Amino acid sequence: MTKSQLFEQILQKQSYLCVGLDTDIQKIPKHLLQTEDPIFEFNKQIIDATKQFAVAYKPNIAFYEAFGAKGWESLQKTLEYIPEDCFTIADAKRGDIGNTSGLYARAFFDKKSSGLEFDSVTVAPYMGEDSVTPFLDFEGKWVILLALTSNAGSKDFQNLVTTNEKQLFEEVLTKSQEWGNSEQLMYVVGATKADMLQSIRKIVPEHFLLVPGVGAQGGSLEEVSKYGINSHCGLLVNSSRAIIYASSGEDFAEKAAFEAKKVQLEMQQYLTTYLPH
Amino acid sequence: MTKSQLFEQILQKQSYLCVGLDTDIQKIPKHLLQTEDPIFEFNKQIIDATKQFAVAYKPNIAFYEAFGAKGWESLQKTLEYIPEDCFTIADAKRGDIGNTSGLYARAFFDKKSSGLEFDSVTVAPYMGEDSVTPFLDFEGKWVILLALTSNAGSKDFQNLVTTNEKQLFEEVLTKSQEWGNSEQLMYVVGATKADMLQSIRKIVPEHFLLVPGVGAQGGSLEEVSKYGINSHCGLLVNSSRAIIYASSGEDFAEKAAFEAKKVQLEMQQYLTTYLPH
Repeated sequence: MTKSQLFEQILQKQSYLCVGLDTDIQKIPKHLLQTEDPIFEFNKQIIDATKQFAVAYKPNIAFYEAFGAKGWESLQKTLEYIPEDCFTIADAKRGDIGNTSGLYARAFFDKKSSGLEFDSVTVAPYMGEDSVTPFLDFEGKWVILLALTSNAGSKDFQNLVTTNEKQLFEEVLTKSQEWGNSEQLMYVVGATKADMLQSIRKIVPEHFLLVPGVGAQGGSLEEVSKYGINSHCGLLVNSSRAIIYASSGEDFAEKAAFEAKKVQLEMQQYLTTYLPH
Repeated sequence: MTKSQLFEQILQKQSYLCVGLDTDIQKIPKHLLQTEDPIFEFNKQIIDATKQFAVAYKPNIAFYEAFGAKGWESLQKTLEYIPEDCFTIADAKRGDIGNTSGLYARAFFDKKSSGLEFDSVTVAPYMGEDSVTPFLDFEGKWVILLALTSNAGSKDFQNLVTTNEKQLFEEVLTKSQEWGNSEQLMYVVGATKADMLQSIRKIVPEHFLLVPGVGAQGGSLEEVSKYGINSHCGLLVNSSRAIIYASSGEDFAEKAAFEAKKVQLEMQQYLTTYLPH
């Protein structure tokens, strides 16, 4: 999916919501545990319930990998079930040296090899250029590079200040623009404070940002939207638990739809207000 | 495997060689392609041929993940085939926020969940403390944290100097010692120059270092050994291509054994010379 196709979807659905499929067997409704593949069955119903309100789906690969080959099959079925018009993100946070990153790229982009073909994959920047570019070699695919994450530990290294007077995550935002453009690179930015988002937008004005941490993890959607939206929206805001675990009963899909719609309606307002006309 | 058990193995085999099982279907001998699971068949013969010379095996997970569920099965069979007295490393370079890293830990440490139980897993440090500690919660298991990698891109961020007058990889070596001790933490250090290894040993005198980049990637085993060996050896030196692809013919296992033995004999010398008595 190209940048303009993604923007088109956002306008059509009036939403920049990404639903995180962090599907935990211990948290899904009990009545699903009798089905053949409870994780896929849960995802299927969540996708059906939310697809009119969401432009993107993001399975976190850890939740599938924890079950080995079987989990990998649930992931494959899930990906195939996501409608074509939705942007798909393999939240894998991979990264390895050159030829090896190429293999990870095949794992997530090359259906003939792995059975999976996502639109994008999250990548960790620590190993530098040659760990990222093999993913960019896949035409029409995206790298979503970790810049500023939303967890407590992010301060340990990402906020270290370098002798260039930049924080490490700012070095990542700057340096990586030499490797790819805003048609193939997005950034994970767990920034929910206005001033931080403003300064990030100065470094990457054109790029899409994937923002976690709105919803169950806290963070204000209004602030993110006000300071993050650019001329083609430029935001994908993820919500996982607040939507997919809105209810632990048999009505989980219905409640997920309700929560997703609530977010979509809020986003519609922000698009009207903050998208440049 | 505990630190002292690993040292015992090193003394017994007079080797600190780790064989990297970076098994690429396009590089393995053609006659194996007719077998049911060529990747496993190759690994099996490599393991048989090298196990008396190697103390550790390190499958790089990308090579298996590229084949989806099927690759995961080859990995599982490979791991089960590695003798009990060898240290096993899942070279996965994972890292995610707290609860999600816990799931990655289950993927590689919890056989009941994923079918896999490695002794250790490589972890990327970018996301900080809470991305690493969930792996450390597994009793008797090891985290091998990326510090200084051996690829060209490592300079992009790992060598940035912070306002603490430390390079980023030195910040990683220092900070992470607050999270675990040398009985549960090792470091990936792609340092093959004497002065660099000396300065690294000042920061982490007690830890095991996993050193890639000796063999096909260049790097002097003697320098690494001279400046890296500590009182319990403290080194695992990886070689992948130079051993496993020593021949592309039907004699690949025999040639792999020959190369592994050559390295082991060199290591025996260095242990005699540099291990404190």
